[in-house]
Amino acid sequence: MFKIKLGGGKTAEVEEKMYWHTTSHILAQAVKRLFPEAKLAIGPAIENGFYYDFDVEKPFSEEDLAKLEEEMKKIIKENEVLERKELPRKEAILLMQEKGEPYKVELIEDLKDGEVISFYQQGDFVDLCRGPHLPSTGCVKSVKLLSSSGAYWRGDEHNKMLQRIYGISFPKASELEEYLNKLEEAKQRDHRKLGRELDLFCFSEYVGGGLPLYTPKGTIVKEELQKEVEKICRNYGFQKVSCPSLANISLFETSGHAQKFNDELFRVNSPKGHEFVLKPVQCPHHTQIYASKLRSYKDLPIRYMESDKQYRAELQGSVGGLSRVYAITIEDGHSFCRIDQVKDEIINMCNIIRDFYTKMGLWEEHWVSLSVRDYEHPEKYIGSKEDWDLCEQMLQEISDELKLDAKRCEGEAALYGPKLDFMFKDALGREVQIPTVQVDFSTPKRFGLYYIDENGEKQAPVMVHRAILGSYERFLALVLEQFKGAFPLWLAPVQVKVMPISDKQLDYSKKVVNQLQEEGIRVELDDRQEKIGYKIREAQLQKVPYMLILGEKEVEAQNVGVRSRKDGDIGAMEMDELIGKLKEEIKSYVK
Amino acid sequence: MFKIKLGGGKTAEVEEKMYWHTTSHILAQAVKRLFPEAKLAIGPAIENGFYYDFDVEKPFSEEDLAKLEEEMKKIIKENEVLERKELPRKEAILLMQEKGEPYKVELIEDLKDGEVISFYQQGDFVDLCRGPHLPSTGCVKSVKLLSSSGAYWRGDEHNKMLQRIYGISFPKASELEEYLNKLEEAKQRDHRKLGRELDLFCFSEYVGGGLPLYTPKGTIVKEELQKEVEKICRNYGFQKVSCPSLANISLFETSGHAQKFNDELFRVNSPKGHEFVLKPVQCPHHTQIYASKLRSYKDLPIRYMESDKQYRAELQGSVGGLSRVYAITIEDGHSFCRIDQVKDEIINMCNIIRDFYTKMGLWEEHWVSLSVRDYEHPEKYIGSKEDWDLCEQMLQEISDELKLDAKRCEGEAALYGPKLDFMFKDALGREVQIPTVQVDFSTPKRFGLYYIDENGEKQAPVMVHRAILGSYERFLALVLEQFKGAFPLWLAPVQVKVMPISDKQLDYSKKVVNQLQEEGIRVELDDRQEKIGYKIREAQLQKVPYMLILGEKEVEAQNVGVRSRKDGDIGAMEMDELIGKLKEEIKSYVK
Repeated sequence: MFKIKLGGGKTAEVEEKMYWHTTSHILAQAVKRLFPEAKLAIGPAIENGFYYDFDVEKPFSEEDLAKLEEEMKKIIKENEVLERKELPRKEAILLMQEKGEPYKVELIEDLKDGEVISFYQQGDFVDLCRGPHLPSTGCVKSVKLLSSSGAYWRGDEHNKMLQRIYGISFPKASELEEYLNKLEEAKQRDHRKLGRELDLFCFSEYVGGGLPLYTPKGTIVKEELQKEVEKICRNYGFQKVSCPSLANISLFETSGHAQKFNDELFRVNSPKGHEFVLKPVQCPHHTQIYASKLRSYKDLPIRYMESDKQYRAELQGSVGGLSRVYAITIEDGHSFCRIDQVKDEIINMCNIIRDFYTKMGLWEEHWVSLSVRDYEHPEKYIGSKEDWDLCEQMLQEISDELKLDAKRCEGEAALYGPKLDFMFKDALGREVQIPTVQVDFSTPKRFGLYYIDENGEKQAPVMVHRAILGSYERFLALVLEQFKGAFPLWLAPVQVKVMPISDKQLDYSKKVVNQLQEEGIRVELDDRQEKIGYKIREAQLQKVPYMLILGEKEVEAQNVGVRSRKDGDIGAMEMDELIGKLKEEIKSYVK
Repeated sequence: MFKIKLGGGKTAEVEEKMYWHTTSHILAQAVKRLFPEAKLAIGPAIENGFYYDFDVEKPFSEEDLAKLEEEMKKIIKENEVLERKELPRKEAILLMQEKGEPYKVELIEDLKDGEVISFYQQGDFVDLCRGPHLPSTGCVKSVKLLSSSGAYWRGDEHNKMLQRIYGISFPKASELEEYLNKLEEAKQRDHRKLGRELDLFCFSEYVGGGLPLYTPKGTIVKEELQKEVEKICRNYGFQKVSCPSLANISLFETSGHAQKFNDELFRVNSPKGHEFVLKPVQCPHHTQIYASKLRSYKDLPIRYMESDKQYRAELQGSVGGLSRVYAITIEDGHSFCRIDQVKDEIINMCNIIRDFYTKMGLWEEHWVSLSVRDYEHPEKYIGSKEDWDLCEQMLQEISDELKLDAKRCEGEAALYGPKLDFMFKDALGREVQIPTVQVDFSTPKRFGLYYIDENGEKQAPVMVHRAILGSYERFLALVLEQFKGAFPLWLAPVQVKVMPISDKQLDYSKKVVNQLQEEGIRVELDDRQEKIGYKIREAQLQKVPYMLILGEKEVEAQNVGVRSRKDGDIGAMEMDELIGKLKEEIKSYVK
């Protein structure tokens, strides 16, 4: 809510969206003043600010935006009252025809018979609008126009390309400043920008959008994340498996995913008549490895994990960067266990989540959701009331035992069971929900999985699903933005850059490189004939954690001059000392 | 060629196929004697032996086969002469109608007008046949019927199911015996059998044929192979990259693979209108990572490697085991280099192949093919004569320098350049062709790849392709059969099995397990209440390299009783000694 000043020293609280919507009318008025030929389309408030689409001869320039901002300030000063009036359909159309606004005419014509048609007028400017609005233009204080770009009328590429101006406004100048700083910070941290600058991934027109290609450096970061999460999971008894990406659709019809994903499911066929689908999830494949052998109660729990690509036919317009892609590499895991083992399995998985997110420096600020049923609509779920009660109670106990302090969120459960969802805050304060632990009585039964119990009877196992880092693509975007590209040492694609001051130190530099390589350190040699200052600046931009500067002095002393990305020059070191320091830091947690 | 005895002490050399074809006529004659109602279909010689298809009321039993073998021996003793006769079409049809052979009638009716229609007669048995044949049934000596199974008439599932009998024959009993031994050996080594017994991979009806799922143990073996080949390649400057499996078809139209693979290409689409293909090869994706940045002559060579799934729509009837699947995981690599670097790059890759196959114990018996153009048909290739001459000469020089002793094989080059192919012999003496190094001037040009040379001019790089282990699926099948499932220590999914003699040694056993795990040894505890002899037998069947047997004596001495898969009991050892021994063996090459 924004606080605005009314006449006579009074104030009022208004919705942000109303505030921004009025600002979009002020923008439209300014455009009509400076570009009288412009035709108005639509101008709504959005999540952050507002936009307005105009039909103009040429795109708005930076200068145009500056001039429009000035004009808007004038209109604010004029403090014109916004007046609402309603008109019958015919008159409304006539008014807009007189004003030369064909898009507005089209909008009115599309309204259903009987709908109220309202306009808002400020001074000589009138706009078709449902409202509501601020009382006068003077209620708006600090305004900023952010950008301009093309947009099709009604979002349809067969229609005319209009020009859209984005803007924002606040009651206080300090609030605007804070918002613009945050925007700049987000831009600096944007994983697409960082990914390009640090050469981590790329896209190709031949391959297509939504299909990122990882370069050598991006592949290192992805694999280090994978090694870390797998190491932790192995400590808790998980074993890796490896499944194909294709399957007959019957696999997912049986699991229920074919119905659930439906038009997000990629179909695969060949001129030879093959018909498959690309897997949208891993769990059904994992049930089939479980089913490949006779299992005894003594064999359980059996815990599988796998990092593999999953495929979702996202809307073609919605893919971008790493956040939304057609193929996500999911780190997935499942435990098949007896009912008396479920609790320990869940605790196991919560501990894995704690270990991994501590390592990532994200654990401190988190909260946990105990996502339970919508008790008023039991028909939305699969499974018996008894099973659900048992599971929800179990999760509550676990929350107490592990001091998770989980918040009960009704209606947030999965189709087949309740779950624990872990929420973190990223560097920009946005909430991130990735890890989850879910209890599932249903899938094993759908596939007829069983084990032989103490009495020689067949029993269905329970399946516990867990996600730790979710998809590598989204997680990489998250950590890139989290660390602003300055990865901790264990994740950095190049950990050390060796820089001879001149060619005279080249041999010694190569020796140093070899020694580090033998210790498993990822090291690069910068043997270009450039000034050392230039080399350092570049390595700093590439966010390399350590630079070794090797001159005559270092060759003579057979040591290295160490520069850290964070602390600058930290003096000379013996190689043994350096290697010890690096290994220690690689093992350590993020501070 | 087989040597056969003719009358009067004379001998002759005949083609194996002729020998086996005559044997199939003897089989048909025997079937007609014992099962007069049987209708004859076809009975050709095949790569190893022959088969004959019969329309009979019920499948042949093992006993039937034994009886038929006896009858064949009688026919051989009778030493009937095989006489050829030709008949006009009408008479031929009439003859077969009289004999009650509808399949033969159908075959004759399908013959083109004017084609010679010939029959071979031995005693009272006559068969439609092109020939040629041995002079008499007595020329065949040792016969064995191997198996019987259903087969559709003309391979079409809409036709009637016939019964096919497979057999083999040799001029000498010793040759037959040797062949049968080899067959038994191959059966024992069959990777499908071993994969099941050692629980390495499985199949699922839900998922579909040709789509293997790797269990935890199979995944370990696959990943150990991958780690090994990547370690070696990294030593030679390769960097891992990671590409999506999907692409717009334009990627492969540009590379030429869309045309080449055509109906083997899996098409991917969604209800939302997406259209992609699944990659059949990796190289085009790798060119796009190269193209994502401006490259200077100083940046080259750039070497990418990747182990990822590739997709080929194999014939549905042809998939089976790991040898032919829809998704093969290929270990692929490419170097982008300047023309003056090509030779060093090829040498690099030959050295990688040597290192890896030495480690696999396959290097000793190999030969190399220098696969050059078909000089009489230059139109079959892409690129200029000059480039080809240069490359072929370069490969010859490399062969000389590295003492590869490569054999020139004309017409075996790839479309875009000559190559070196490495051939090995597997445990059964079969030739295996996997690794290859190929020079490619064409692909970089098709994608417009370039680097900036010393003079600031754009130059197209050369691409050198290399395969080391090829596909993990085929390679795993190969090493499974090669080692008969008894993997060397570094590849064994379980390296050590710890077996307490009774529950009294359980605590100590767990301590031993932990100690080994901390050293990175893959160890399993067998804490079942079974007799120690039973546990050993089972571990031996699972081909576990080392078993540690822990009884009272060992607990007291705080050491371990060691049993090796190969040498049996090798006595007590201190833990340090054991760990040292294991690590040494893991590092060592296959003997």
